[in-house]
Amino acid sequence: MTQAIPKMMKAVIKAERAPGLQLTEWPVPQIGPGEVLVKVRAASICGTDLHIYKWDEWAQSRLKPPFVVGHEITGVVAQVADNVTSVKVGDPVSLESHVVCNECFYCRTGREHICESTKILGVDRDGGFAEYIAVPAQNAWPNTPDLPLRIAVIEENFGNAVHTAMAQDVSAKYVLVTGCGPVGVMAIAVAKAAGARRVFATDVSPYRLNMARQMGADLTVNVLEQDVITAVMDATCGEGVDVLLEMSGAPSAIDQGFTVLKEGGEVALLGLTSGPFTFDLNRHIVFKGAIVRGIVGRRLWDTWYQTRGLLESGAVDLSQIVTHELALEDFDEAYHVFMSGESGKIMFHL
Amino acid sequence: MTQAIPKMMKAVIKAERAPGLQLTEWPVPQIGPGEVLVKVRAASICGTDLHIYKWDEWAQSRLKPPFVVGHEITGVVAQVADNVTSVKVGDPVSLESHVVCNECFYCRTGREHICESTKILGVDRDGGFAEYIAVPAQNAWPNTPDLPLRIAVIEENFGNAVHTAMAQDVSAKYVLVTGCGPVGVMAIAVAKAAGARRVFATDVSPYRLNMARQMGADLTVNVLEQDVITAVMDATCGEGVDVLLEMSGAPSAIDQGFTVLKEGGEVALLGLTSGPFTFDLNRHIVFKGAIVRGIVGRRLWDTWYQTRGLLESGAVDLSQIVTHELALEDFDEAYHVFMSGESGKIMFHL
Amino acid sequence: MTQAIPKMMKAVIKAERAPGLQLTEWPVPQIGPGEVLVKVRAASICGTDLHIYKWDEWAQSRLKPPFVVGHEITGVVAQVADNVTSVKVGDPVSLESHVVCNECFYCRTGREHICESTKILGVDRDGGFAEYIAVPAQNAWPNTPDLPLRIAVIEENFGNAVHTAMAQDVSAKYVLVTGCGPVGVMAIAVAKAAGARRVFATDVSPYRLNMARQMGADLTVNVLEQDVITAVMDATCGEGVDVLLEMSGAPSAIDQGFTVLKEGGEVALLGLTSGPFTFDLNRHIVFKGAIVRGIVGRRLWDTWYQTRGLLESGAVDLSQIVTHELALEDFDEAYHVFMSGESGKIMFHL
Amino acid sequence: MTQAIPKMMKAVIKAERAPGLQLTEWPVPQIGPGEVLVKVRAASICGTDLHIYKWDEWAQSRLKPPFVVGHEITGVVAQVADNVTSVKVGDPVSLESHVVCNECFYCRTGREHICESTKILGVDRDGGFAEYIAVPAQNAWPNTPDLPLRIAVIEENFGNAVHTAMAQDVSAKYVLVTGCGPVGVMAIAVAKAAGARRVFATDVSPYRLNMARQMGADLTVNVLEQDVITAVMDATCGEGVDVLLEMSGAPSAIDQGFTVLKEGGEVALLGLTSGPFTFDLNRHIVFKGAIVRGIVGRRLWDTWYQTRGLLESGAVDLSQIVTHELALEDFDEAYHVFMSGESGKIMFHL
Repeated sequence: MTQAIPKMMKAVIKAERAPGLQLTEWPVPQIGPGEVLVKVRAASICGTDLHIYKWDEWAQSRLKPPFVVGHEITGVVAQVADNVTSVKVGDPVSLESHVVCNECFYCRTGREHICESTKILGVDRDGGFAEYIAVPAQNAWPNTPDLPLRIAVIEENFGNAVHTAMAQDVSAKYVLVTGCGPVGVMAIAVAKAAGARRVFATDVSPYRLNMARQMGADLTVNVLEQDVITAVMDATCGEGVDVLLEMSGAPSAIDQGFTVLKEGGEVALLGLTSGPFTFDLNRHIVFKGAIVRGIVGRRLWDTWYQTRGLLESGAVDLSQIVTHELALEDFDEAYHVFMSGESGKIMFHL
Repeated sequence: MTQAIPKMMKAVIKAERAPGLQLTEWPVPQIGPGEVLVKVRAASICGTDLHIYKWDEWAQSRLKPPFVVGHEITGVVAQVADNVTSVKVGDPVSLESHVVCNECFYCRTGREHICESTKILGVDRDGGFAEYIAVPAQNAWPNTPDLPLRIAVIEENFGNAVHTAMAQDVSAKYVLVTGCGPVGVMAIAVAKAAGARRVFATDVSPYRLNMARQMGADLTVNVLEQDVITAVMDATCGEGVDVLLEMSGAPSAIDQGFTVLKEGGEVALLGLTSGPFTFDLNRHIVFKGAIVRGIVGRRLWDTWYQTRGLLESGAVDLSQIVTHELALEDFDEAYHVFMSGESGKIMFHL
Repeated sequence: MTQAIPKMMKAVIKAERAPGLQLTEWPVPQIGPGEVLVKVRAASICGTDLHIYKWDEWAQSRLKPPFVVGHEITGVVAQVADNVTSVKVGDPVSLESHVVCNECFYCRTGREHICESTKILGVDRDGGFAEYIAVPAQNAWPNTPDLPLRIAVIEENFGNAVHTAMAQDVSAKYVLVTGCGPVGVMAIAVAKAAGARRVFATDVSPYRLNMARQMGADLTVNVLEQDVITAVMDATCGEGVDVLLEMSGAPSAIDQGFTVLKEGGEVALLGLTSGPFTFDLNRHIVFKGAIVRGIVGRRLWDTWYQTRGLLESGAVDLSQIVTHELALEDFDEAYHVFMSGESGKIMFHL
Repeated sequence: MTQAIPKMMKAVIKAERAPGLQLTEWPVPQIGPGEVLVKVRAASICGTDLHIYKWDEWAQSRLKPPFVVGHEITGVVAQVADNVTSVKVGDPVSLESHVVCNECFYCRTGREHICESTKILGVDRDGGFAEYIAVPAQNAWPNTPDLPLRIAVIEENFGNAVHTAMAQDVSAKYVLVTGCGPVGVMAIAVAKAAGARRVFATDVSPYRLNMARQMGADLTVNVLEQDVITAVMDATCGEGVDVLLEMSGAPSAIDQGFTVLKEGGEVALLGLTSGPFTFDLNRHIVFKGAIVRGIVGRRLWDTWYQTRGLLESGAVDLSQIVTHELALEDFDEAYHVFMSGESGKIMFHL
C-alpha cells in the first residue's frame, strides 16, 4: 500500500530576495521526530502568498529564501515518524499551517493560535506547493475519504471564517460582513448556518458581492455605489447590527462598520490594515460599550472540530468557493487570475 | 378605531377547589397603573393548564379559585394606562406569562426570569382563556401585523424552547433532545437553525417522534423499542453528544441523556420530574466535568428578541406546531385531545 | 419623622451659556410618578463637572442652561411617590446618575448602562449640587446607615472603577492601570481585592502615583521619568500584562498599554481621548488576538451589588479617596483645587 | 552538577491485592521519550491514597499491583530525555498527577483535565512515594527556587481548590464551602483572595472548622451542632449564597448547600458521594435556574498558572496547611494520623 518515496520532487519556491517564484526540482523533505510526510494532492493560494510573490515590505522583512511556498494544503499521509498514532499512512488530511511549540503559556492554556513561537508553513518553513511536505503529526487533520479535494484544500482557510464568525454568538442577530473575499463569503455562510437573523455584506467588487449573495448574504452593498450606513440602518429599521465581522482591512469599511454597530455590539477583526490609521476609540468602542476581538488563524483545535461539524452536517456548502483549478506548473497564471480580483479560491492540482 | 370595551366577557375559569373548568360570564378586568388591556384573539394549552384542570397535588397547593385560566395568549391592545408608551391601542401582541417585580436582586441584574416575586398569568392572577386580559405593559410583546395567529399564540411557549436550546452554544455540535412534546420539537428546530452538527431525539410516542423528524431531528429513537445509549453512541461514532436538552422529566431519560453526554458536555434541564429521584452525581456531573443549567421560563427579554429574530429570518418554521384549532367553548374537548398525547399545540380561537 | 419640605433651596447651577457656575436660590423639585425626593447630604466633583464649569466644546454642544449641576450624590429619602416600595422616607441612599428608560432593547436585555435614551443627572436634567434632588426611585440605591458619608458620596464613581476592573477576570493575573485619577486608583484597589497577581500603574503626577501606591499598586511608573514598556516588561520577566485597564485617555498611554499587553490579553477602556487618533489596530488587537471592551457608566444594577459586596466585606477601603471636604458655598475654591491635580475626590457638605 | 543516578531506590508500593502498603527496594525508573526523571524531595498524602491503603471496592476494581503509590510530589529534575526543553536538570518542580494523551478531542481543545486516556501517577502508573519518579516533561511544573517544600508539595492539591473556586466568579459574592478538608480550606483562602463578600464553611469536625477560620472563613458552622440552613440564611439576611463549593460528597451537605443557594446561583462540585443518592433536581437546579459544574483535577495548565500567580502575589498563604512532617519510612504512622481526621496535609521528607 505504501509507495516508494522519491528523493526529489517538483516544488514552487521563493528562490531569492526578489519578486516572483520559481518551479524547480527540490529535495523531498525528511521527517523529524513526531512528524509526518504528506503527499500533496491539492493546494490553494492565499493573500499571504501574493505578498510573497510580490516581495513587498512585509515579505522582505520576514522571509529567508530559498524555501518552498504555500500553506493551504490537502493530501495523503505518506510516512509517519516513530510513535505517531494520530494519523497513519494513507489517511487523507488537510494541514493546519501554524506549527506551534506546545510549551509556551499560550499553548499550555488552550490558545495555541497565539503561540509565541509559531512557524507558518510556506513562510517560516517549507510549504506545500510541492509534491511532498513534512509537518508535525498534529498539523495533519484527518478528513473523511469522501471529502472532495476542492473543499479539503480550503479547509484551513475556511477555518479563518469559522473562527471569526464563531468568536461571538450570531444566532438570531443582525450581522455585517465588511469585505467579501473568500474568507468573507465563507463567514457569511457560517453566520447563516448559525442562525443569524440577517447577514449584510459590503465590498467594492460586483464579482465578490455576487459570491456573497450565493453564499447566503441577505443584502449586499457596493460601497462605491451606495451609502453603507444608510443602507444598513434602513435594513435594520434604524437599529444597526449586533455583530460586525471585519474582513477588509480598509479604514473606511472599519469606520462604517463600527458606525452601524449597535450599542453593546460585538466585533471580530480579521482584516489587516496597511498600517496605523485614524480611529475614533471613544465613539466606536468606549461610548458604545462594544466588545472587540482580534482574530488570528484558527483556534487549535477547536476551530477544526467546528469545521468538521459544519461540513459534515451540510450546514455550510463550500462547493462553489474554488472557482479556478490549475496545474501547479501554471502557478504564474494562477497568481495573475488571483490579482484580477475576479476569482474565488484558486486551486492547484498535483 | 377604538372599540367600546364591554363590562362582561366570556371566560374559562377555575371556579372551585375541584377538577374541571367552567365557561362563564366574568367581568372584563380593569387595568391598573402601567397596565394594558388586551383583546384576546387566540390562546393555547400548556402542560400547566392540565395540572389545573386535573386539580392535582401541585394545583391544590398553589391555586386560589376562582380565577381565569390560560397563559399562552395573543391578541390586540385594546386600552393602555396613562404613560404607557411601549405599545399602543391596536398593536398585535403576544403575552409574556411571568409578571415580575422589576425591583428584586434578580430583576435588577437582568434575570427577571427568576424574579423572587413572579406571578404567573392563569395561575397566580387572571389568565387569558377569555375575551380580555389585563397585564403590565412590558408583558405585551409587539408582533409584526403579518405574524400568523397560529404562530403568535405559541410564541411564549416557543420561548421556552429558545431559552433551553440557546442556553449553551450548539453550533457544529451533537445535540440530544430527550422528550418530544411541543417544546422539545421546537427546541430541535432551534438547534438545527443554530447550526447543530446533528440533532438526536427520544420519546415513547410515535406521533411525537414523527413531529420531531418534521422539525428537523436527524435521528429519532423510540425508547420503548430501541436502546437509546447504543443508538446515540453508534450515531456519534462512540463520541456521545456535546449537548443534552432535557425536556421529559423522566428519570430514565435523564440518566440515559447524561450517560451519552461527552466529558465536559453541557446540559439544559427544562423537564420537571415528578419528585426527587436517585441520581448519580459523581458519574453524570463530577467525573465528566459537565456543566448543567436549570431552565425556567424565558429570559426577559433576551429570549423574546431571539424569538423575533428566529421567526423573522425564517430560520425556524413553526407553522406545523399547532395541530388543532377549536373554539373556546370547546375547551373540554380540547383538554381531551391534549390528554390523548396525539397532538401538537392546541389553540383556541376567540 | 418626616420633615417639612421647603419651597426653595440653595443650589449650584449652570445659569447661562458661558464659563463658571452660580450659587442661587432654586425651587425644590417636584417629584413625578415613580420618583423620590432626596435630601442631599454630600456631593462630589467629577471630571464631567469640570467640562461644564469650563464651558468647553462638549459642554456647548450638549447642555441647555439653566439647570442644577452635580451627579455624585448621597443623601436621605425625603419623599416618595405613590406605589414606590424600593425605598422609604429616611433611607440613606447614593444616587445612580444615569436615568434610563427601562423600555429600549438595551434596558430590556440587562444592559441599562447603554440605554438609548439615557439622561444624566446634572447634565441632561437637574443634578444634586443642591439641598434636594428628584430621581426615579430605582436610581436611589439604599446604603446601610453606618456607611460613612465620605464613602457613600463616591459610591457612584467607585462603580466606574468596579465596572472597569470586573469587566474581565483579573484573579492571579498581571494588571496594568494607565491613569491614576480617582477612578484609576479605585480600580487598582478592586483589582487587588479580586486577587490580581501584581498591579502596575502609570501616570505623570507624583501625587497621583502616591495615591496609587496607597491603594495597593505593586509598582508605579511615572511616564515622564521612566520608560513604561521597559519597566513593565522587566517587572513581568518579559511576559507583559494579562489585563489593561485604560483610565487616561492619552494616546501615548493607550499605545504603551497595548504594547505591553500579552497575546490574547484583555483590555477595558474607560478613559476618553480628546478625539480620533492614530491607532495600530493590526499590532494592538488583531495579531494579538486581544479582547477589548468599552466601559461606560456602571452596569445597572450588577455593579451596584458588587460595590456593596466589596465595601461590606472590607475588601476595598475607600476611606482615603476623598482628600478635601468643603461647604457647597465654596464651590469655586473646590473647582480650583480640582484643577490643580493635587487632589483625590473633593466633597461638598450640605 | 549532575549526580549519578542509582539503579535501586526505596519506595512505598502496593505490593499485592490486599490492604496496606510496603516499603521496599525498587528499580529507579527509566525515562522514555519526552520524559524526565525527578529526584523526589517531598510527597504528601491524598484521600485517594487512603482508598489504596484500605483496598476498598474502588481500589480493587481499578488497581493492578505491584506499583509505587503517591501522586502529590515535589522534587528536582535529575535527568531529561532528548529534546526536552521545558525543564532542565536541577530545576525544582512540582508534579501534575494526570498524564494526558495530548491527542484526543479534549486534549486538543484545551481541556486536558478530562482527557479520555488519563493515567494518574500512583494509581495507573508508578507514583512518587519513592526516591525517583519518571513523568512526561510537561507534568513537571517549574517552581521558583525559594518556594518552601511544604508549599511545593501541596501545589497539585492546591490546584484542586483553585480549579473549584475559580470555576465561577466569586468576587463580591457570598460563598459557601461545604466540607473543610485540606482542599476545602484552601478553597476558602482562594475565594477570600478573589474578593468574596463573605465565605461560610461547614463541617462536622471542630479541628477542620478551626482550620477553616484560620484560612479566612467568615463564619463556620458545625452541622452536628447548628442548623446550617438557618445559620446561612441569617448570615445573608435571608438572601442565601451566590456560590456553593461542594467539597464533602455528603448528600446532606449537598442538599443543604443547594437549599441555601440563591436563584441563578452557581455550584462547583468536587466532592464525591459514596454512590447515587436521592436528589431533587427540580428544586435544586431547574426552578432555581442554577448553573452546576463538575470539577475534576486541575485545568491543564490554566490552573497551574493561576496557582503560581496566587502564591507569588501572597494573596493565598499555604504555610499552615501541612500540619505533620514525617520520614517516608514512617508511612504507616502517617496513614493513621490521616485517618484520625485531626490533621491538615501530611508530608513525607525524602
